[in-house]
Amino acid sequence: MNSPRSKNYTDWYQEVIKGADMAENSLVRGCMVIKPWGMGIWERIQRLLDAEIKRTGHENCYFPLFVPVSLFLKEAAHVEGFAKEMALVTHTRLKIEDGKVKLEGALEEPLVVRPTSETVIAESFAQWIQSYRDLPVLINQWANVVRWEMRPRLFLRTTEFLWQEGHTAHADQQEAVAETFQMLEVYRMVMEESLGLPVILGEKAPHERFPGAEATYSLEAMMQDGKALQAGTSHYLGQGFAKAANIQFQDKAGDLQFVHTTSWGVSTRLIGGVIMTHGDDEGLRLPPAIAPSQVVIVPILRDEADRSSVMDFCEKAARSLRQQQFQNEPLRVKVDTRDKKGQDKRWEWIKKGVPLIVEIGPRDVAKGELCWISRLEIGKKNFEPADGFAAKAQERLLAIQSGLYSQAWELREGNIRTDIKDWAAFKEYFSKKAEFLGKGAPGWVRAPWCGDPETLGVLDEMAVTIRNIPLGQQAASGPCVLTGRPAKWDVLFARSY
Amino acid sequence: MNSPRSKNYTDWYQEVIKGADMAENSLVRGCMVIKPWGMGIWERIQRLLDAEIKRTGHENCYFPLFVPVSLFLKEAAHVEGFAKEMALVTHTRLKIEDGKVKLEGALEEPLVVRPTSETVIAESFAQWIQSYRDLPVLINQWANVVRWEMRPRLFLRTTEFLWQEGHTAHADQQEAVAETFQMLEVYRMVMEESLGLPVILGEKAPHERFPGAEATYSLEAMMQDGKALQAGTSHYLGQGFAKAANIQFQDKAGDLQFVHTTSWGVSTRLIGGVIMTHGDDEGLRLPPAIAPSQVVIVPILRDEADRSSVMDFCEKAARSLRQQQFQNEPLRVKVDTRDKKGQDKRWEWIKKGVPLIVEIGPRDVAKGELCWISRLEIGKKNFEPADGFAAKAQERLLAIQSGLYSQAWELREGNIRTDIKDWAAFKEYFSKKAEFLGKGAPGWVRAPWCGDPETLGVLDEMAVTIRNIPLGQQAASGPCVLTGRPAKWDVLFARSY
Repeated sequence: MNSPRSKNYTDWYQEVIKGADMAENSLVRGCMVIKPWGMGIWERIQRLLDAEIKRTGHENCYFPLFVPVSLFLKEAAHVEGFAKEMALVTHTRLKIEDGKVKLEGALEEPLVVRPTSETVIAESFAQWIQSYRDLPVLINQWANVVRWEMRPRLFLRTTEFLWQEGHTAHADQQEAVAETFQMLEVYRMVMEESLGLPVILGEKAPHERFPGAEATYSLEAMMQDGKALQAGTSHYLGQGFAKAANIQFQDKAGDLQFVHTTSWGVSTRLIGGVIMTHGDDEGLRLPPAIAPSQVVIVPILRDEADRSSVMDFCEKAARSLRQQQFQNEPLRVKVDTRDKKGQDKRWEWIKKGVPLIVEIGPRDVAKGELCWISRLEIGKKNFEPADGFAAKAQERLLAIQSGLYSQAWELREGNIRTDIKDWAAFKEYFSKKAEFLGKGAPGWVRAPWCGDPETLGVLDEMAVTIRNIPLGQQAASGPCVLTGRPAKWDVLFARSY
Repeated sequence: MNSPRSKNYTDWYQEVIKGADMAENSLVRGCMVIKPWGMGIWERIQRLLDAEIKRTGHENCYFPLFVPVSLFLKEAAHVEGFAKEMALVTHTRLKIEDGKVKLEGALEEPLVVRPTSETVIAESFAQWIQSYRDLPVLINQWANVVRWEMRPRLFLRTTEFLWQEGHTAHADQQEAVAETFQMLEVYRMVMEESLGLPVILGEKAPHERFPGAEATYSLEAMMQDGKALQAGTSHYLGQGFAKAANIQFQDKAGDLQFVHTTSWGVSTRLIGGVIMTHGDDEGLRLPPAIAPSQVVIVPILRDEADRSSVMDFCEKAARSLRQQQFQNEPLRVKVDTRDKKGQDKRWEWIKKGVPLIVEIGPRDVAKGELCWISRLEIGKKNFEPADGFAAKAQERLLAIQSGLYSQAWELREGNIRTDIKDWAAFKEYFSKKAEFLGKGAPGWVRAPWCGDPETLGVLDEMAVTIRNIPLGQQAASGPCVLTGRPAKWDVLFARSY
């Protein structure tokens, strides 16, 4: 690639996306066009996550794209949090007069294009819920949302993005909190096991909660430049939205109570996380679980006379492979029959991150063998009898799936500093720029913090924030790394996307 | 039901949706909330159709929700067609001052919330296509679209709806026209074989083409009130959009040519078609191919002491059923364990249109049998040994699938008049109101037409339009039914949704 990770990580990221032909910017600033390869990855993520969402008892619904402004006003923290990034619909007709455009049909009340759907879903919950027998309500939607973005980056920050948002209502706090953690765990499982992203689960510091939430939990993944990516969030919303929308139920004793709600979401941003976690200097590397094609077979033709025998051999290999399974589904196998040079095709699939690439030429056909490369070791060409290849494909894909995870895990473990105890060391550590970790850029610091948001001002300059307060800790491991005062928790400090 | 079809067809439709708990109106006029049962049906339709769209070589993409107004202006007929129903985004920030809402961040150019994506996709095509080697481009997207609707009706006409829109670009007219017909056939297959909707394929009359199209083809289905529902459309767009967006390619001879494009779509309106085709006076009836649950098992408990034996028996029956397949997928089976009376549950599932409902009480357990009803004959209770039920489920579901189709087909065939030859007979036929066909309401008239749109003014009063010009005809079967002049084609006249 023109921009290896060590040269310019930002350029490298753009180049991977372009090289893999995943997405591009559209005419509307901040909005992206997701191309077939990017969409194929999203469809896989959707399908895997949707199955988990349903397995845990949730059902899909669809709520309106538009939210009247007045609904947002009902929850003060919520509107405050989103007011500066709202697309607002004000008119319903265009008139073209003498080539000039006029807007007509002004709405009495402007409509917000949903940045998230808590408010509109709360109105439905208020209709649906009367009695404790109606609880819990467990729903999810797959949708597009819009948050006006000043510094857009493909997949990571876009004005429009695709996501799922789960919304639930419960009779009491305990059950709602349990739901919040259950979905955090569902996300962890899909991210780690399918996307190969090791994540650290933790609670967001109070000043970084979702607008209107009582508690926000996040999953943070380390990118190869040492920055953190918030890969997903799960919120315990308390009774704030319930009170704003009057979602009350009659409990077993006959008393009226407000429900406790939760919400949780992940978005197309995950694709950005996959790129920045697994990509190398040749381009994308895809975990087999989310690869649109897990095996691509490239026929190598030098002479037109060989075409039919090579093509037949390729098709036969594809058929055997398709009888094999990976994670209980038939392998996704493509024979690349396009009229292009074999070598060009190979590089295309390498850049797209296909886990296994198979090449078959006339000499291979004669010998009954094939040549395969793993996207983990593209320098190594492996020759083996074609007959036995299919039977080993699942095992090799599993090795790639776990290999990508292990590499990411090792990189992360090697770049979380737990030995930084005071401000001088902290400042020194983050004095280096965020660039490719291989060049010695800083990673994360896990250290105690006193919990006072006013102590964080000193971090602004270095663009460091608290990512989350990792779960599973008993107490802070020492005094606050920023101030030396008694600490509340150990937290993760990092730069972030 | 309070409103049988024969009493008030419109009320009946609303009541079926409410009774099946499929969808409801939202606070935003014209936008709907699709509830789990409605969404479950849409997810099935999506999955079946998506497989066909991919099988025919198309890939999914995602294009932006927002379209700059200037893009619409490039294609004059297109903007004209949609100008009166556009949601327009004009601002990007809200400010709340002293409780008052102000809009800020005015956009230089308003953005249209896509009513359809021809214009924005054409801009991408212009980037993607340089050479004949880049053709054809075959893509699809699943998305929400917005067309401001003054007379909304759940599923049938809503301001926001969900759909898929396919968009393709081809080197020549012949290939583009073939694509247009291929997708019409894909729609026919899914509608007839999975949704059980018999449809008549035909070309729209020139004055009813999609704005900007050279030819529009539709699939028209007859509802139980005799009205036609346009269930899907496929458009040959010619070179109009290609010229507006400058989508040119170098052909084999090295000359620059404009591509020929197509587009085709179906929407959540199909769910409205399913309701109005198959619903009866007890509620919805669902073809098994799209039923979220194909079999529901209702435990009948009179005595708490029976609970565990009845529940075990139900779960065992469910397990055997899930080992059976329908159309190559495991049966979708639900055991309804909710704390409600068995009879209330049965009626809920009848109203939701579940194809097979099974009831199991303690006496059944003792005898080793179960009681089942088919949604086609809910009056008939069938008892049989539980052991043998699962093995026969597929056959019975197939009978329901084809039974629903046959009933719809017979109703339609019995209500297309081909013997109406002149204006007097035509006027007499359509003098009756559109209401339940069982009460003698008019259906459709298939008759010759001269092709002059000015002759259609006489139809306004009776709200009749030309639905389409059915495919497969050689010549008109006689003189124009409206004017007696020589006719161009036989067309379908009907009232419509």
